[in-house]
Amino acid sequence: MGRIICAGLGPGDPELMSVRADRLVRSARHVAYFRKQGRPGQARKMVDGLLAPDVTEYPMEYPVTTELPFDSADYNDCLARFYDGWADRLAEQAQTRDIVVLCEGDPFFYGSFMHLYTRLQGRATVEVVPGVPGMVGCWWATGLPMTWGDDVLTVLMGTLPEDDLTRHMQAADAIAIMKTGRNLPRVRRALARAGKLEQAWLVQHGTMPQQQISRLVDTSMEVCPYFAIVLVHGQGRRPEVAP
Amino acid sequence: MGRIICAGLGPGDPELMSVRADRLVRSARHVAYFRKQGRPGQARKMVDGLLAPDVTEYPMEYPVTTELPFDSADYNDCLARFYDGWADRLAEQAQTRDIVVLCEGDPFFYGSFMHLYTRLQGRATVEVVPGVPGMVGCWWATGLPMTWGDDVLTVLMGTLPEDDLTRHMQAADAIAIMKTGRNLPRVRRALARAGKLEQAWLVQHGTMPQQQISRLVDTSMEVCPYFAIVLVHGQGRRPEVAP
Ligand SMILES: C[S@@+](CC[C@H](N)C(=O)[O-])C[C@H]1O[C@@H](n2cnc3c(N)ncnc32)[C@H](O)[C@@H]1O
Ligand SMILES: C[S@@+](CC[C@H](N)C(=O)[O-])C[C@H]1O[C@@H](n2cnc3c(N)ncnc32)[C@H](O)[C@@H]1O
Repeated sequence: MGRIICAGLGPGDPELMSVRADRLVRSARHVAYFRKQGRPGQARKMVDGLLAPDVTEYPMEYPVTTELPFDSADYNDCLARFYDGWADRLAEQAQTRDIVVLCEGDPFFYGSFMHLYTRLQGRATVEVVPGVPGMVGCWWATGLPMTWGDDVLTVLMGTLPEDDLTRHMQAADAIAIMKTGRNLPRVRRALARAGKLEQAWLVQHGTMPQQQISRLVDTSMEVCPYFAIVLVHGQGRRPEVAP
Repeated sequence: MGRIICAGLGPGDPELMSVRADRLVRSARHVAYFRKQGRPGQARKMVDGLLAPDVTEYPMEYPVTTELPFDSADYNDCLARFYDGWADRLAEQAQTRDIVVLCEGDPFFYGSFMHLYTRLQGRATVEVVPGVPGMVGCWWATGLPMTWGDDVLTVLMGTLPEDDLTRHMQAADAIAIMKTGRNLPRVRRALARAGKLEQAWLVQHGTMPQQQISRLVDTSMEVCPYFAIVLVHGQGRRPEVAP
């Protein structure tokens, strides 16, 4: 009996993988990973140079979605069948061998692997190795501490409606907004409405070779990659001797 | 010229340290870490067995606080002078050698090192190695994915007033509450008021040898260690084929 082991790879820099994930990746005989059709896949790119030369790879290609709107019931069904199919295939493979599933960041934090994880319960031995979430690599990249004292940190998805974003931004001290990409203009409007645009940073490809950091007010709204996070740092209390 | 390098050690299990932190810890000649007086210190315990036998150790002992209330101006001054003093000592040491500062979890996420980091700017070369935050190790320990779809995750400190806790808990989909310890009864009351007590988990010492996981409703409120986190998992949308 083999196992399905999902290794959280961290934000991008291979040196930020955990000791356990690093060992798993280097010794893997079979690896699976999600990717968009025709793309190398971010998780796969992160382990370039670490995989054994004769490893067997299973790219799990998301179904193409040009015809179906993202929020339609049809697209939902299409995606559900995609996960069902891969859960079946991995469960079958795991009868006889270990398969390492590569995941960016931490697998239990908005990760696609969770859709396989729930489907595989009771059908195969499934293990998860936690990783440094992408946002942690992004706040590291700004060189500024993220949360102090009893700051409230809220993590938001750029896919949320503008009013929801604004309301949550107003209530929080520190903010991380993921899935920015094409949602960046809406994220920016919400930050402005919450009075927090001036403090916001945009980190693209945090800890990866092509990392870019800018203040959001200075950033062109035209192209923002999928691997981008907007951050507002907390300013909570800290002990200082009164002058 | 040496450097001050703060290594985020992750939640507890040494195998969850990053490859870079692991290498730094093993090759360190001088290490510093915070601890309470008379205690080994959690960060120091995590690297037991990894440090070189002849390493020089600088335990940075928090000032004793039995006489001063935590939120008093006097305690604040006392703590500020403590950080000032250690910043001076580390800056001086770093003139001639590298010093590795050991920190639990991720250093920029509510970490005490941030108080040294800001004080050391412009006075020494300071580097930080991000780590897996304690809360990520805790949600891993529950075996349940933490956030789905566009779930809103809010991180709260158990030190916040009950009304603030309740309000933020109501607005969030997924919740992590840190610094529970003696604040656990208040955290529990706030969760009940927010209608989320039944879904809450308590993880003590996540990923450490003495790890304990329980549903909060089943947990005695009597003793809760400092290294404990309360979690409410998100239940956001996920693709499933309609039955
Ligand atoms: C489906 S979520 C997966 C999150 C991942 N499991 C984690 O722990 O970070 C994808 C989003 O993560 C964010 N992200 C992850 N790593 C990143 C990085 N290194 N730099 C910028 N954004 C990143 C981006 O906002 C992206 O849209
Ligand atoms: C001062 S904060 C430091 C947080 C740390 N920098 C991090 O990234 O997790 C201390 C709090 O972290 C939480 N914590 C950190 N690691 C933990 C673990 N392994 N298990 C339970 N709680 C943990 C506890 O709630 C504790 O009160």
